[in-house]
Amino acid sequence: MALGSDPGITLDELRLAARNHAMPLEALRWAITPVGLHYLLIHYDVPLVDPRTWRLEIGGAVERRMTLSLDELRARPRVELAATMECAGNGRALLEPRPVSQPWLTEAVGTARWAGVALAPLLEEAGVGADAVDVVFVGLDRGVEGDVEQSYERSLPVGEALESGAVLAYEMNGVSLPPQHGFPLRLVVPGWYGMTNVKWLSEITVTTEPFTGYQVTSGYRVRKSEDEDGRPVTRMRPRSLMAPPGMPDFYSRDRIVDPGRLVLEGRAWSGRAPVARVEVSTDGGSTWADAEITRELEGPWAWCGWTFSWDASQAGEHVLCSRATDETGDTQPLEPEWNLGGYENNAVQRVPVVVR
Amino acid sequence: MALGSDPGITLDELRLAARNHAMPLEALRWAITPVGLHYLLIHYDVPLVDPRTWRLEIGGAVERRMTLSLDELRARPRVELAATMECAGNGRALLEPRPVSQPWLTEAVGTARWAGVALAPLLEEAGVGADAVDVVFVGLDRGVEGDVEQSYERSLPVGEALESGAVLAYEMNGVSLPPQHGFPLRLVVPGWYGMTNVKWLSEITVTTEPFTGYQVTSGYRVRKSEDEDGRPVTRMRPRSLMAPPGMPDFYSRDRIVDPGRLVLEGRAWSGRAPVARVEVSTDGGSTWADAEITRELEGPWAWCGWTFSWDASQAGEHVLCSRATDETGDTQPLEPEWNLGGYENNAVQRVPVVVR
Repeated sequence: MALGSDPGITLDELRLAARNHAMPLEALRWAITPVGLHYLLIHYDVPLVDPRTWRLEIGGAVERRMTLSLDELRARPRVELAATMECAGNGRALLEPRPVSQPWLTEAVGTARWAGVALAPLLEEAGVGADAVDVVFVGLDRGVEGDVEQSYERSLPVGEALESGAVLAYEMNGVSLPPQHGFPLRLVVPGWYGMTNVKWLSEITVTTEPFTGYQVTSGYRVRKSEDEDGRPVTRMRPRSLMAPPGMPDFYSRDRIVDPGRLVLEGRAWSGRAPVARVEVSTDGGSTWADAEITRELEGPWAWCGWTFSWDASQAGEHVLCSRATDETGDTQPLEPEWNLGGYENNAVQRVPVVVR
Repeated sequence: MALGSDPGITLDELRLAARNHAMPLEALRWAITPVGLHYLLIHYDVPLVDPRTWRLEIGGAVERRMTLSLDELRARPRVELAATMECAGNGRALLEPRPVSQPWLTEAVGTARWAGVALAPLLEEAGVGADAVDVVFVGLDRGVEGDVEQSYERSLPVGEALESGAVLAYEMNGVSLPPQHGFPLRLVVPGWYGMTNVKWLSEITVTTEPFTGYQVTSGYRVRKSEDEDGRPVTRMRPRSLMAPPGMPDFYSRDRIVDPGRLVLEGRAWSGRAPVARVEVSTDGGSTWADAEITRELEGPWAWCGWTFSWDASQAGEHVLCSRATDETGDTQPLEPEWNLGGYENNAVQRVPVVVR
């Protein structure tokens, strides 16, 4: 199957696809995604960090600069947070024309139980001034992007930094942060797309002017052309995914299902409000019926589960879909809205299955 | 950069590339690959296994059938094994014309410390008859491949099963086997390409006739055409990889290096004999000099490290290469030899870097 009228994925895109990885969709069966199955996007290289010499520096427009070792961070009150994290570029390779970058299909997502220290009390201890605008998070990974040499850095508005429930995580799913997920420390801002959650965190800087770094002003903006300023990518839009039923064909990933009643299952999330409704269509999106929602994980920022009983008695091809609606009333669209960077494509997933 | 004269990677190939993942080459800096960075290829779906009801059945041409629970296996003598594992299709996407399957570039490899029970004493306890030919390993993952519905299964000649040092592993790097690496039990045959190491192992069957399953007679054979019987893929050919120096461009992965002397580093392995020699070329393969070899891991089946001091004083583009030779005298070729399935491409890696 070709990519529409597209000439196909290039070697540059393939290099990114070989390095970074999505979550195989059958892993939707786990409420907490096992380490190694959670999606992963690394802009530059995984840095090799010596935890004995590593320090977190908190500075800029604060009353007291702070320097913290990993042991000092671990000695502070420990918080846990179950959070679903999705790449802002998830679904990019399904857009036409395809924005060239990491060519994600539908599954750049995962849910982890992060543990670490809460961000807000640390910032309060440092003393954030009344004139503070942004909080900038700097990682140790360094490279060139859009001809700009840079360390990976992203900012949060100061209000979000203080009130979003953000965590500086040193553990993932009960083990020390794996190198590829940001060892020894990363930011986790629940509800935001993945690019926010700076890995290999080394500096936090409070600014009194809006931050204008590459990943905020050039990358991660929703816009139709380079001329447009656009708007920043922030919180995750509602989305639902299905664990494909039956068994796959190795190469095409087509699904083969035995006839009979079966339970479709999946997960749904939104970074803007809890999921209020999940619907399923077994006819490619023509008609919809409510799925049953189960909430296994605490808090509003981890996905919920859903199940739907399907009478797969009719042989032949069927296209299964699910769509989530969150408590703000925002619903997944049937067709994506194109933008230059290929961000926020939360169009309904289509799962073709053949009942034999 | 395009893939030669190729029309580009298709959606089918991209689906595989999004699910499966290689080892980002900077992870060569770790002797033992952290969980989640080790390469991963899954033919069908990751099965969800309940360890309480799971059993390993040993049968076929044995004197005593055996049924073992995970607790019973864990109660047996524990062995550890450091082993490098490479996908037989590593390098496939660099062949022209490109065999269509999982489109690996150069980095489908990893090294783990496996722990479990030795295979040979189990087979001896079951009593392998003098007429035994093959030992068949059956996994719980099921799907369709080449129009054949199948559980993933592979065989070993009985001599290899008894004498290769194979382990039935329930741990990887000191933790319980992750689901995607075969929980609760997988086969690890040191020195063999990855397809041998059946995950989610459920049955071991001794046969008195050669095994003719799909993954031995259709898949994983080196041949130029469908008409040819070819030869089976078995042990890994010698190979060396370099951790790319300097820093990357996000999209192109081109490397930028500051001028001055720097230490190039990487790993080398062979599944046929220990690595005897690693050479480095800084001029695209025209001239070669010996690298220094370091052996951090015990045993002959885990990669060795290598380092090479490079005087990167000349600005401009350089193509760096390394090549391994094992104790049988087998050396990596500069150009790959094409075959239908795209197996065993151990051609020398080329790493373009720009000294600025």
